[in-house]
Amino acid sequence: MTATFVIERATPSDVGDIVQLISELAEFERLLDQCVASPEQLREHLFGARPYAEVLMARQGGQSIGFALFFHNFSTFLTQPGVYLEDIYVRPAHRGQGVGEALLRAVARIAVERGCGRFEWSVLDWNQRAIDFYKKLGAIQLTDWTVHRVSGDALLSLGRG
Amino acid sequence: MTATFVIERATPSDVGDIVQLISELAEFERLLDQCVASPEQLREHLFGARPYAEVLMARQGGQSIGFALFFHNFSTFLTQPGVYLEDIYVRPAHRGQGVGEALLRAVARIAVERGCGRFEWSVLDWNQRAIDFYKKLGAIQLTDWTVHRVSGDALLSLGRG
Repeated sequence: MTATFVIERATPSDVGDIVQLISELAEFERLLDQCVASPEQLREHLFGARPYAEVLMARQGGQSIGFALFFHNFSTFLTQPGVYLEDIYVRPAHRGQGVGEALLRAVARIAVERGCGRFEWSVLDWNQRAIDFYKKLGAIQLTDWTVHRVSGDALLSLGRG
Repeated sequence: MTATFVIERATPSDVGDIVQLISELAEFERLLDQCVASPEQLREHLFGARPYAEVLMARQGGQSIGFALFFHNFSTFLTQPGVYLEDIYVRPAHRGQGVGEALLRAVARIAVERGCGRFEWSVLDWNQRAIDFYKKLGAIQLTDWTVHRVSGDALLSLGRG
């Protein structure tokens, strides 16, 4: 028998669980060395004066089993906001029950309700399981675009110039 | 002799110029068929009750010669907001004077002032001139990530599920 799960908006009391889930995701993505997630900063940026992102939690029997974190981006070609899904994660022991799909659909519903033209996210090239899953749900891959990033000292230097 | 240019925050009176510049950029990117930019929507989403993006204009002799449009994204690994540059464009007749670099540096300065950990944007794979320019300024390419997108009917369908 499979226990049912629920998808709910995160509240400030979820901050500790979200940081733990972010850390598990970073480990899965083999990027733990890049992860310096802090509960204080997360609380401020999710629930403070200027929220930068929103989170949905997946819960089962009172436990946090997954999450989705997203924010609004903006398309100049559509002159419309969109939704960008920064992270989606389901704990390994709770996969195969449709939790990830339910999280993704819940974010898509929010995008539609808010009149967004696009719903986007990024996937690591080696994560074929995820790529197949997203394709099944109607996503197209933008293979001709590459993200560029400036951070740390390079960002300070660029900003000073 | 090269006329000087200035970088300034866009105001509602720039909306018509911005839509024109977006259209020129779409043509340059060979994506004009995807561009349905509307001045009414742009005005609402830049200057309305819930601004989704911000714009810097490059001007010379009272004319708009380029723009940069950006918004905040959010990194879960840093638990910090970042800046995402959606578009940067300089009219062909005004290239080679450092206008693009000045726009990029002005956005980077805003990112630093606001405590952002990262400054990111996407580049079309065939735009080698842009790729070389960004590399020179300290950007790294995230070649192992691919953006996925759901839009139109596929988004409606995903949101209904």
